Amino acid sequence: MPPPQSVAQQLAARQREISVAEFFERNRQILGFDNLQRSLLTTVKEAVDNGLDACDEARILPEVEVEVAKEGEDRYRVAVTDNGPGILRREIPNVFARLLYGSRFHANRQARGQQGIGISAAVLYANLTTARPAKITSKVEEEEAAHVLELSIDTQKNLPKIVGEDLVLWDRPHGTRVELVLKARYVRGRQSPFEYLRGTAIVNPHARIVLVEPDGTRVTFERAATELPPLAKETLPHPYGLELGELGYLLKASRRTTLVDALTKDLQGVSARAARELVAAAGAKSSDAPGTVTGETQEKLLAALHAAPLIAPSADGLSPIGALLIKRGLRNVLGDVRPEFFAPPVSRPPKVRGGYPFMVEVGLAYGGGLPSDQPVQILRFANRVPLLFQQGACAITNAVGSLDWRRYGLDQKGGSGVPVGPGLVLVHVASTKVPFTSEAKEAIAEDPELDKELTLALQAAARHLRAHLSRKSRRDFASEKFAIIRKILPKLAEKTSHLVGKPVPDLTPVVTRIMDVVNVEAPVVAEASGVHVPVEVTNYTPRARVLELFVELPPEVLAAATFDPAPEGTEAELGRAWWTLPKLPPSGRATVRLTFPPRTDVETNDLDWFVAGVDESHLLGADPLPGDWDVRLPRTIVEAAEEAASDAAREPGDEEVDYDAAEASARVRDDD
Amino acid sequence: MPPPQSVAQQLAARQREISVAEFFERNRQILGFDNLQRSLLTTVKEAVDNGLDACDEARILPEVEVEVAKEGEDRYRVAVTDNGPGILRREIPNVFARLLYGSRFHANRQARGQQGIGISAAVLYANLTTARPAKITSKVEEEEAAHVLELSIDTQKNLPKIVGEDLVLWDRPHGTRVELVLKARYVRGRQSPFEYLRGTAIVNPHARIVLVEPDGTRVTFERAATELPPLAKETLPHPYGLELGELGYLLKASRRTTLVDALTKDLQGVSARAARELVAAAGAKSSDAPGTVTGETQEKLLAALHAAPLIAPSADGLSPIGALLIKRGLRNVLGDVRPEFFAPPVSRPPKVRGGYPFMVEVGLAYGGGLPSDQPVQILRFANRVPLLFQQGACAITNAVGSLDWRRYGLDQKGGSGVPVGPGLVLVHVASTKVPFTSEAKEAIAEDPELDKELTLALQAAARHLRAHLSRKSRRDFASEKFAIIRKILPKLAEKTSHLVGKPVPDLTPVVTRIMDVVNVEAPVVAEASGVHVPVEVTNYTPRARVLELFVELPPEVLAAATFDPAPEGTEAELGRAWWTLPKLPPSGRATVRLTFPPRTDVETNDLDWFVAGVDESHLLGADPLPGDWDVRLPRTIVEAAEEAASDAAREPGDEEVDYDAAEASARVRDDD
Repeated sequence: MPPPQSVAQQLAARQREISVAEFFERNRQILGFDNLQRSLLTTVKEAVDNGLDACDEARILPEVEVEVAKEGEDRYRVAVTDNGPGILRREIPNVFARLLYGSRFHANRQARGQQGIGISAAVLYANLTTARPAKITSKVEEEEAAHVLELSIDTQKNLPKIVGEDLVLWDRPHGTRVELVLKARYVRGRQSPFEYLRGTAIVNPHARIVLVEPDGTRVTFERAATELPPLAKETLPHPYGLELGELGYLLKASRRTTLVDALTKDLQGVSARAARELVAAAGAKSSDAPGTVTGETQEKLLAALHAAPLIAPSADGLSPIGALLIKRGLRNVLGDVRPEFFAPPVSRPPKVRGGYPFMVEVGLAYGGGLPSDQPVQILRFANRVPLLFQQGACAITNAVGSLDWRRYGLDQKGGSGVPVGPGLVLVHVASTKVPFTSEAKEAIAEDPELDKELTLALQAAARHLRAHLSRKSRRDFASEKFAIIRKILPKLAEKTSHLVGKPVPDLTPVVTRIMDVVNVEAPVVAEASGVHVPVEVTNYTPRARVLELFVELPPEVLAAATFDPAPEGTEAELGRAWWTLPKLPPSGRATVRLTFPPRTDVETNDLDWFVAGVDESHLLGADPLPGDWDVRLPRTIVEAAEEAASDAAREPGDEEVDYDAAEASARVRDDD
Repeated sequence: MPPPQSVAQQLAARQREISVAEFFERNRQILGFDNLQRSLLTTVKEAVDNGLDACDEARILPEVEVEVAKEGEDRYRVAVTDNGPGILRREIPNVFARLLYGSRFHANRQARGQQGIGISAAVLYANLTTARPAKITSKVEEEEAAHVLELSIDTQKNLPKIVGEDLVLWDRPHGTRVELVLKARYVRGRQSPFEYLRGTAIVNPHARIVLVEPDGTRVTFERAATELPPLAKETLPHPYGLELGELGYLLKASRRTTLVDALTKDLQGVSARAARELVAAAGAKSSDAPGTVTGETQEKLLAALHAAPLIAPSADGLSPIGALLIKRGLRNVLGDVRPEFFAPPVSRPPKVRGGYPFMVEVGLAYGGGLPSDQPVQILRFANRVPLLFQQGACAITNAVGSLDWRRYGLDQKGGSGVPVGPGLVLVHVASTKVPFTSEAKEAIAEDPELDKELTLALQAAARHLRAHLSRKSRRDFASEKFAIIRKILPKLAEKTSHLVGKPVPDLTPVVTRIMDVVNVEAPVVAEASGVHVPVEVTNYTPRARVLELFVELPPEVLAAATFDPAPEGTEAELGRAWWTLPKLPPSGRATVRLTFPPRTDVETNDLDWFVAGVDESHLLGADPLPGDWDVRLPRTIVEAAEEAASDAAREPGDEEVDYDAAEASARVRDDD
């Protein structure tokens, strides 16, 4: 008989099961309850996210009210009320007081909550820190009264305990209210409920969100859109990235009778023809029952699925923010700070990792009032939820830090890390399953597929930034040259003439010849009568020119515009229009006027200007027409090009130039 | 009757329980299985940590062997064998194939594993990615044969499935072997199994660790100590930081009959007298049954517990690394790179957060061969386990980044973030419960108590750094001055004399007067005969001086030293010794010789030198005696001080100075 007190036996006697509630109670920092400030925010966040998810699913325009009231030293009452569909009485205890219980975990669809942990974790934390039960009020449309339940969690069993119950009349057709008393600290500013709700409002413009702060201040984030975003549909898993074990479960759980049926109907992206080929490649039969495919056959099938050119993953399960809202969101965050440049928002096509579709969106703003001596601000969002904590642990931050921003014009020590400069980057990751680093859902884990998409999206935005900066530096350089030529040269000449005792020579021809640019100015002027863009193209070159002017702007903005004169042509879907300008003598100027309806949301940076008929080095305030424009240049420009070629053969200085006009124009510009 | 298809009902129909295994299978990134490289490391880590914990508990000197073999494209077999006590047959399935099952969760004692998740998570990951069961071999001392079990996890139930079983003879008295086949990638360098094992060996010098790499390379981390670290004892929770809910559970679960008994015997730090006072303060009776204390009384009791001056938390549950091993560990990491300075390791006294004791240890190395243009390297450890991932999310990193290192002599943009410079910081957090940010246990969560201790420990180390740097810069400045004075001044004088056609004056008195320092040089010279420290004190001031020399060094090192001449006095426990030097004329020199036994582990930086009898601005290579030395200065020094005071009354330049000797001495130094 073995000795009764062997070490192995002593150790065995201590082995026991750990309830998931016990585990999280002891490790509440994992759920986002690290400290008093964060605990309050996490509580608000879980309740608000649940309310928004429920409204989205029920196709209701969300109205969420968050009230935070002080109850004592480090003790607050948080109440979050939504106008969602309400929760059936029988589900209330499990939804709010049982960890790992929920409706969204098994749905392959983008949602804010996915784990079935969040709100129960808040209840657990409240129980633990103040020993007070959670008070849940919920009314569904089909019932007259609302159920009120007081709940706590039996942590050893991870089951709800109902400590009070009532029925009350509630003056709303449906909705849910969560009320918790917890140890917490209320702050404003960074990582505050205010900031979280503001971020939420930015990417959920269809929601109306109200915050009542402990001092009674009432902040309303008004709805900016009255249309619901398209419903993210539940989708089937895509084979790319599926693991062997996952395929095994899928086949075993399949209700289809044949393997081909299972592949086409339990997965997305697999056509019947592809399925038959895959089955053959794996050495199985189309008619095999899915559950019988195991071992080596299963491995071969998976390899074939990964290698096959399947239909790309569907984005139906995703609900991206979209370019328009990203830009509006950035403006909203910036408030009175006007950046000098917004990069066109980048939306990458959906990809798949581990069978789950995902996509990345990026917005970027630069310059103007943004602080230039601080790290670039990164706004992180996952499934339309702002991420405020653990920035350093997040794949988004790492992707930003891995880019060599020096190549794109930002300051970055050693070519890695968050760059320094007047920039702001917004990144949204949307997925049917976001790989968070922990249950607190504040940081996204590293993943090769995701990193690649993040990098590509950031690079695209960064390229726009580089183009902007190089355009700007070219313009600055030319403006400087302009200033020197028009002001300093004449003075130098005057002084020199005085010294040598000769009359001052007429420098005007020299000035104009040195200038040698076509200048485009297109200010955006918002007035009650409308938003006006008077574009002026001035020929500061010593030669008459035939020029073609092109503009590119958001198609929906272009659609509402009127023009004077009418454009030579337009491409409505691409937001493009163009004009052939009258032949401009030296110092000659042409004007084109664009007018948008009053209050149109358009800025200087929304309009990209291009000019043909003069080469890049002689162009100021516009770019040469990029190669990807499929526009047939009008005959006049072709003629101009020929003319330029014959010009080159002539001696310089032969042209007749109206220097007085050039000088007058320069004077006008000085007065601006 | 409500309509059968209301939105609330549709939503309710989708609600369901989520098994913890399902949850983690879908969110395996939370457990440290983000990508192929990390998955391999996490698997090795969980198995090795378990082996080391079991050995520590059974008081066995650990021998752990890790074998990684390639099985195919992105597929590896990992086998980890330990010489621990083994696991009883009946516990093997639950220990290795059931999440949230373990022996260390409920023990209030420092251990590597605490969650009951790690190794089962590795089994889950192996199952998922290769559909192969885990193979566990374990033998306990009292049985003849070893049990071999093949296990997988039923994720929907979170229960083990035994897919194979056998009994084999194993040529070891006891131990456990875990064998897994998983999708993975093997790398060397940063974040590799090699680095993790090296880090583990550094802070567990009592363990022998072997790594067999896929190419057959066999790396052995030999045991550096044959003594087990003291066993961390299981301790009771301390009331400081206890939450209301926790106190509630504790009282309810108590087996004591009276409240006073429960407070004194179920908690640590509460004396019987304190307990009676606390009970009275809460308005309860000493004889109340613990379970009956609820509501407001409980709240009052908790407030009283938090406010009471209780006995400080015991460190019995902790197993710190200790100053000696921290320093040895740093040297080990640095290998051939010799830093110029090691700060004396800092060990903070144990504190308590949420009832759990913890303590912080910090080591710091600087300069020498460390790269100066990169961020300071941070080595993070928690409960003797190296943390290799998620550095950006870790409270340790944040504490390092929150310190204004510019004040301590390092370069740091904007005064926050990881500083740049030739530094290396080792931080160890030991606790009976480390607050990790996720189940992957790679980063420590923010916590106000912990942050405070981290900051204090880092500041203490940083102050040593600052002292070192200021000493160094003073020395550099003085050396520069030395060089200029001794070489350039005479040349200048020669040239000037030549120009004006006069003879070169004798500059020696001027040179010596400008120098005006007492210089201490104390090189450490390791030879076969012993480690020698010939200390030379030279009086480069234009005045004769009586000086007192003091040294401070690790007490155990001092104990083994011999001296020539014998010191005037010693304080053995504090590692201090001092000498009164013979009166030194200008350029006079005194020598004191310290000798340690051969191979004594002592470096220049282990010896701190102080001098009394000359003020700080005239001292080079040593510091003035700090105020906290309680040494009675010998009469000679007091006389010298008086003499100095009378000197000050005299005109400068009156002293008789042996300039030739000074010059000769300077020449000797040149030849060094």
